[in-house]
Amino acid sequence: MITGKNYIGNQLSAEGNKVFNTFNPMLNKENKWAITEASADEVNQAVELAAEAFKSYSKISGAKKAEFLRAIAKEIEALGDTLLEVYCAESGLPQGRALGERGRTIGQLLAFANHIEDGNWVEASIDTADSNRQPLPKVDLRKMNVPLGPIVVFGASNFPLAFSTAGGDTAAALAAGCPVIVKSHPMHASTGELVASAVIKAAQNTGMPHGVFSNLNSSGIEVGQLLVQHPKVKAVGFTGSIKGGRALLDLAAKREEPIPVFAEMGSVNPVVLLPKSLNNRAEAIAKTYAGSITLGAGQFCTNPGLILGVKSQGLTHFINVLAQEIIKVEPSCMLHPNIAAAYERNKKKALSQKGLEVLASYENEVNINYGRQAVTTVDGSTFLNNPTLHHEVFGPFSLVVQCENESQLEIIISKLEGQLTGTIISDNNEVSDYINIVNALQNRVGRIIFNGVPTGVEVCASMQHGGPYPASTDSRFTAVGVDSIKRWVRPFSYQDWPNNLLPDALKNENPLGLLRKVNNFKTTAKI
Amino acid sequence: MITGKNYIGNQLSAEGNKVFNTFNPMLNKENKWAITEASADEVNQAVELAAEAFKSYSKISGAKKAEFLRAIAKEIEALGDTLLEVYCAESGLPQGRALGERGRTIGQLLAFANHIEDGNWVEASIDTADSNRQPLPKVDLRKMNVPLGPIVVFGASNFPLAFSTAGGDTAAALAAGCPVIVKSHPMHASTGELVASAVIKAAQNTGMPHGVFSNLNSSGIEVGQLLVQHPKVKAVGFTGSIKGGRALLDLAAKREEPIPVFAEMGSVNPVVLLPKSLNNRAEAIAKTYAGSITLGAGQFCTNPGLILGVKSQGLTHFINVLAQEIIKVEPSCMLHPNIAAAYERNKKKALSQKGLEVLASYENEVNINYGRQAVTTVDGSTFLNNPTLHHEVFGPFSLVVQCENESQLEIIISKLEGQLTGTIISDNNEVSDYINIVNALQNRVGRIIFNGVPTGVEVCASMQHGGPYPASTDSRFTAVGVDSIKRWVRPFSYQDWPNNLLPDALKNENPLGLLRKVNNFKTTAKI
Repeated sequence: MITGKNYIGNQLSAEGNKVFNTFNPMLNKENKWAITEASADEVNQAVELAAEAFKSYSKISGAKKAEFLRAIAKEIEALGDTLLEVYCAESGLPQGRALGERGRTIGQLLAFANHIEDGNWVEASIDTADSNRQPLPKVDLRKMNVPLGPIVVFGASNFPLAFSTAGGDTAAALAAGCPVIVKSHPMHASTGELVASAVIKAAQNTGMPHGVFSNLNSSGIEVGQLLVQHPKVKAVGFTGSIKGGRALLDLAAKREEPIPVFAEMGSVNPVVLLPKSLNNRAEAIAKTYAGSITLGAGQFCTNPGLILGVKSQGLTHFINVLAQEIIKVEPSCMLHPNIAAAYERNKKKALSQKGLEVLASYENEVNINYGRQAVTTVDGSTFLNNPTLHHEVFGPFSLVVQCENESQLEIIISKLEGQLTGTIISDNNEVSDYINIVNALQNRVGRIIFNGVPTGVEVCASMQHGGPYPASTDSRFTAVGVDSIKRWVRPFSYQDWPNNLLPDALKNENPLGLLRKVNNFKTTAKI
Repeated sequence: MITGKNYIGNQLSAEGNKVFNTFNPMLNKENKWAITEASADEVNQAVELAAEAFKSYSKISGAKKAEFLRAIAKEIEALGDTLLEVYCAESGLPQGRALGERGRTIGQLLAFANHIEDGNWVEASIDTADSNRQPLPKVDLRKMNVPLGPIVVFGASNFPLAFSTAGGDTAAALAAGCPVIVKSHPMHASTGELVASAVIKAAQNTGMPHGVFSNLNSSGIEVGQLLVQHPKVKAVGFTGSIKGGRALLDLAAKREEPIPVFAEMGSVNPVVLLPKSLNNRAEAIAKTYAGSITLGAGQFCTNPGLILGVKSQGLTHFINVLAQEIIKVEPSCMLHPNIAAAYERNKKKALSQKGLEVLASYENEVNINYGRQAVTTVDGSTFLNNPTLHHEVFGPFSLVVQCENESQLEIIISKLEGQLTGTIISDNNEVSDYINIVNALQNRVGRIIFNGVPTGVEVCASMQHGGPYPASTDSRFTAVGVDSIKRWVRPFSYQDWPNNLLPDALKNENPLGLLRKVNNFKTTAKI
């Protein structure tokens, strides 16, 4: 069932001469599937097909696209246990996580199907003509969102399903009316091929144009570079490291026609512990955070890598309990030997920083490729003066910063890099006394959480997953939730256009029954 | 009244040692006002003040910001004839245009005041919690738009009021809750200072924080570069040449923290003449276009620089009438000797291209700095093979491309660079037979016009002014109309946040009475 080939539109293809295998980190050995990297010619074929498919796919109705997305969801489900087994073999993640992530992926596809079906997402806006206006008559203008063109999606290492082949970026782009070319993540190429086969089957069953979807394998960076540089590619979605995301952003910025790159990158997700909450429930908070830090071996972009508080008995108590609790957690397998090795390297580098104290570090022997958690602490001034401590250590690692006072806490927050999330742990109304802290945190993040943990990113309309750089490359968009469709569309205006030739969303009769902005008022009325 | 100084927040300041004068192109001599370029230190002061002002200004209510914008409009009007006189002296544009542009500028400020007053523009979205959801409880999430931070606006050469100091970019940014630092256009520095004085007066009268607005003079590119590179600047708005816009985009992309640059740049605004319309009314179309090409000495980003048709008797007739009509128009003064010289240079370059035929060129003696119009023609293959002919000649210039057939016309359209507008001239239902042409044109433009002229950009909600690169740097946004506020905001989510600490837009009680998305349905109801 797994061929190791690329999907160039509906066709399996393996013209390249570079072959690689994915790796099972649990068994510490290569998987059996031999994957063929896409050739430069195959990259070009996929993009040309996508550009051709765009001509018809960009015009397909919301209802038809919804049918396509629902068919993808059904076909992914139909892959059954095979998908779950391959997922686990290529990620070291447990079956429960595979099941959960498959559910999330299917849920995302269905959410986009629901979102686009009625057509309201195009944000139809109409200003009618006024031939009597002085000094000049007013023209008729009608605006709606239209798709950008072929989109390249990079599969993520840490979400083999939900942020990969048919994950959030792909679902959003297909929903928008954009063909998608996936650059499959090399760690999950077989998982990717299975999901790609589901997308292709769904495309064929629902009559979508050849080239609406392609899936390209790669072991190195060349395929991705060719894709981002291709003149017919109009935007890029990426989930991964700051280094990787920035490289793509730079590449896209140097094109003759620069294109948008939405990269959701790293984040240390600061958690601020307010004094009363520490006084009253340091133990409970510490236990919760021991769980959040080690969840999924810390391989989440929302992992709480930085915990901030003002020096106090409560904070000391929190630190002590966190240290005790964290080493009770059984380490788990990381995604790949390279990721496990990078974690050990980055952890070691952090631990070697002057002034940093190790609170607890799991030192027992573990299986190979398992990530051994560590929590550390440092005082406020040391943190402020050492940028290395501000950077993410991808894995089950966290740093508690003990600030001298509230004012230092505020300064530290205001000097943080951009973050996906920020969390305030507070007792009842305590937070009202720390509005400056909250405002400083708000300026650095995309989502602010009250008395919770940053891990767990709800897929819903009100989710903002994307923050100031380097959390993401453009804080004006989200990577999660239905509004992520906005990354792949542009507004388009028709001036004095004949009614019968307008898209349904903008016709006088309002055949789709949309809630439209008409002369500045929202209405479902006809013109 | 004109001091030649910079506004660093509310303070007039002239620490720099570089002084320059603006130029009156009608009189062909320097204006009397000596303008002092901002020093690096003044640039820094302005940005630091803006960052400080952001802390409070970002939280001010829509009603208060609307009051500020209306006060700016009032103060601009109160500048009276002085503003109009200085405008004309620094642009060579006639009094009527000054009046019209002042009206537009005031209209834009009032439109943004109306847009933000009720608060609906923040796009409030709420997903309520569900503690019983399986397998995991659902958190409460609430999202709205929040301002990005200090914005730098570059004044435009061709719109000394409407796209400069208190023009569209500034009005949109102030409406969003972002402090603005204007890099005044060197050709209109005194006009800029007058308008800046109105903004400052309005800010003081309505109690806005010191630093919410600054206005910096410059003769060269250094001040702009310092601004775009300043770490506390969060986005940039620019209207001008492709070369200038691209330089800023590249500079912003190289920052440690890349920031969005919205540059609205050049465009040749293709006009497609369909055969029946040419057959039936070639003469009327030619007369209309002779006017549109020469309007404002062709100094509009929507000037029709490229006219496309299939070879026919009708097209020949159109060409002949256009040639006759265009030289009947009296040339007018261009904005500056440099712009007049660049026009002559670019026109000469275009005229020297192989295969290009001059249809008509105004050759009579004219006043110095006046732009003498020219219309030219070329066949389809020559156009396709010569990229120079695809580029804008800023001024009263246009090129008619005579295509061999419909298929060549479609190819030519599909190979055009991105454009602000595209126009179809059609008889009644003729256009229905040219859907491929329309679709090809739609892919290259931001706004498509039926039987009109591209000049004249209506300021309304349904306007899209911004197209695929290089018409603008990000086709996902507009530079004109209230939706241009979206360039300066980002979505922000609150998770499980206490109701009393939420912004009014997201509170359970819905105190602003907004139309909000609640659990995926639009409603004005309370939670």
